[in-house]
Amino acid sequence: MSFTTLPASITAPQGFRAAGVVCGIKRLGTGKGSNKGPKRDLALLVSDLPAAVAGMFTTNQVAAAPVKLSIPRARQAFARAVVMNSGNANACTGAAGMRDAREMTKLVADQLDLTERSVLVCSTGRIGVPMPMPRIKRGILAAAAHLAASPENGHQVAEAIMTSDTRPKEIAVELVLAKQRVRIAGVAKGAGMIQPGMSLSGVRPAARPLHATMLAVLTSDAAVESRALKSSLAEAVANSFNRITVDGDMSTNDTVILLANGMARNPVLTLNPSSRPLLRKFQEALNHVALELAKMIVRDGEGISRFVTVRVSGARNFTDADAAARAVANSALVKTSWCGGDPNWGRILDALGYSQARVNEEKVDIAYSPPGSSQRIYAVQGGRPARTPFRRLCAAVAAPEFDLHIGLNLGKAKAVVYTCDLTEAYVDFNKGDIGNPSALGG
Amino acid sequence: MSFTTLPASITAPQGFRAAGVVCGIKRLGTGKGSNKGPKRDLALLVSDLPAAVAGMFTTNQVAAAPVKLSIPRARQAFARAVVMNSGNANACTGAAGMRDAREMTKLVADQLDLTERSVLVCSTGRIGVPMPMPRIKRGILAAAAHLAASPENGHQVAEAIMTSDTRPKEIAVELVLAKQRVRIAGVAKGAGMIQPGMSLSGVRPAARPLHATMLAVLTSDAAVESRALKSSLAEAVANSFNRITVDGDMSTNDTVILLANGMARNPVLTLNPSSRPLLRKFQEALNHVALELAKMIVRDGEGISRFVTVRVSGARNFTDADAAARAVANSALVKTSWCGGDPNWGRILDALGYSQARVNEEKVDIAYSPPGSSQRIYAVQGGRPARTPFRRLCAAVAAPEFDLHIGLNLGKAKAVVYTCDLTEAYVDFNKGDIGNPSALGG
Repeated sequence: MSFTTLPASITAPQGFRAAGVVCGIKRLGTGKGSNKGPKRDLALLVSDLPAAVAGMFTTNQVAAAPVKLSIPRARQAFARAVVMNSGNANACTGAAGMRDAREMTKLVADQLDLTERSVLVCSTGRIGVPMPMPRIKRGILAAAAHLAASPENGHQVAEAIMTSDTRPKEIAVELVLAKQRVRIAGVAKGAGMIQPGMSLSGVRPAARPLHATMLAVLTSDAAVESRALKSSLAEAVANSFNRITVDGDMSTNDTVILLANGMARNPVLTLNPSSRPLLRKFQEALNHVALELAKMIVRDGEGISRFVTVRVSGARNFTDADAAARAVANSALVKTSWCGGDPNWGRILDALGYSQARVNEEKVDIAYSPPGSSQRIYAVQGGRPARTPFRRLCAAVAAPEFDLHIGLNLGKAKAVVYTCDLTEAYVDFNKGDIGNPSALGG
Repeated sequence: MSFTTLPASITAPQGFRAAGVVCGIKRLGTGKGSNKGPKRDLALLVSDLPAAVAGMFTTNQVAAAPVKLSIPRARQAFARAVVMNSGNANACTGAAGMRDAREMTKLVADQLDLTERSVLVCSTGRIGVPMPMPRIKRGILAAAAHLAASPENGHQVAEAIMTSDTRPKEIAVELVLAKQRVRIAGVAKGAGMIQPGMSLSGVRPAARPLHATMLAVLTSDAAVESRALKSSLAEAVANSFNRITVDGDMSTNDTVILLANGMARNPVLTLNPSSRPLLRKFQEALNHVALELAKMIVRDGEGISRFVTVRVSGARNFTDADAAARAVANSALVKTSWCGGDPNWGRILDALGYSQARVNEEKVDIAYSPPGSSQRIYAVQGGRPARTPFRRLCAAVAAPEFDLHIGLNLGKAKAVVYTCDLTEAYVDFNKGDIGNPSALGG
């Protein structure tokens, strides 16, 4: 790999300051999610210089106000700041919600002497509840007053966006581009309502189903031209956040924002052929950052006990490979069998059979392996039970992390989906929360 | 209603004899499903006269051997008998499975002096395990020796097809067609892997996703021409079994078979216009039988605590209405909220938003009512929270059965889906069964 891992903090790249504060949104909720974890619930991230910006947003038709506001701002060439909150998704809040989202960015702009349009916003938490703007205003003022480039302040951001997450999710890497040290860092949150399907425009790219709230904010001090940055983020998200599913529910608030402020002084990365080798190196590091954060989201999925990488190969085309992998990854019966450590390949074949992918039972191979291993412990070969002793299959599935290899043997297309089991703890966590007149989720 | 309900038994119509026996397939399995309920595991149903036949079969590409064998036999004009077993689905069993399914029908034909092709077969239970043919042969001989038209024998059939079902599912009705008393009866089984999408040919009718093992066998002494019977069954299944979902998993074995032997001596029902009024009357009664059996399957779904009828209206077209209803009915987050009695409309709006249906958030209405009631307890009006007190919403969702009304207000199309909550008991039941080298399911 052409990059090294640094101590994680979103402020690791040069020229970024951040702060996360307690403003009391979470305290308003009596939801299970809102009582877990740290109490910080508002964060601010600022680039000292105008940064090239890119954003990917939920394709849910019921998109939250902060998503609607941030989409056009992420289409701009540059931005300066991102304000984030947990505890309230500002989703299904109508015109008032749009005013509140805009007000949040205006408050930040006023405090930091920026233009309103250079500030993006993301929210996560309860759906359908008005934003508690007096608290949020106090929070923004406090965050703006405490901005710093310290790792501590970076960690505050990772904490402030948590909802049902049990731990913060952060990463930072460093690479060298034409002798200049360049850093990329990120924070993310997830836990439930996780099957993102994001696009640059928030518009679904195809008639194909795409299906959390997950938020991620990435920073870099690389010098990257805006169009190249948008293209790089789209590739990174396509292979990471858009490849995960906890429960198959796509959120109203999914957002990934990347700011790159150029302070590393590398030669500016563009889409020109001459820039390709350096852009590729940047892309590899960005892909790594996005994939590691995406996997952290699945590993911290609500109530999970197993992390499973579903690898489909031999499909006729990518659409089929993706459909097959998602049918298996989202099957209630497959997910519950993993919870019990049961190598129930019958349910896997069943899910493949009802997927939208072309499947020929007699050609299907199903095998397990340790994560990333080239070993294959076959459960099914050519549609028929393999001769593997049952206790070996059980041992493969008993591991907290394993790969499931599905060979359709009908073509050359592949797809990977990162997922988890379905447990009683998931049901218990999500089975409602009477006495809380709200709707945790976005 | 132009029909009356009779004491339930599949032998209620004239000219049908049946038997259900213990042949020891279930005893072979140590699966949770196979140890529950009665020990009967093989049943035989025979019409004294050749009966018009119709069948609807799973559109899962991984279809079980009995499905593959029965599809062409149900396309014939007439059939005489159905042999059924539980404990083994004879799915993913390759060429040997096809031989075993055929052998089952041959054994029945030999015992009853019928042609092999006039015998249909359905199986449910473990996937990927060879059929224990010596036991099955003994079972078929025993059943053939005990055939009777008694209600007791009818109940034996309902018991013999149970897997994870906690109770048998039976119904019988009587109507009058041109002064002749005509009866329709049926048995069904369900519990898990329930989101049938059946067609007459076992081929998926459209690019639209269709998703148990559910089995149902229906009998009637009506005189119905074969083509009219196939058309009637297709209509009845489209509005019943194909409208239910427990867990969104479509089985490899879903089958509905209808035999109508004409012994009621009504004027033969055909597709001719002159026959339409009587055929319509028959259809209404058949629709009722199918829908009641379908609802019994959902009410006895694995681990359920709530039965919910999702009624979508105002969609642009039926495909949209169906997609919207299924997205809500299959959402893990919506289903777990029902489990807790939480009227979490945010999750419902979220699921509508990621469905393949066209949805405009600002137009969406969401309301609850008691089953079939014209009362509306609004949770959402025009995409915004309604003014209904939260405790009233909680009371609506606390009931063991309620209707969920979703108005998209974009058109005139409607769809209904019958579903249930997702509970810890479902996860516990399905989380595998280590020590059982098999795959319960089909």
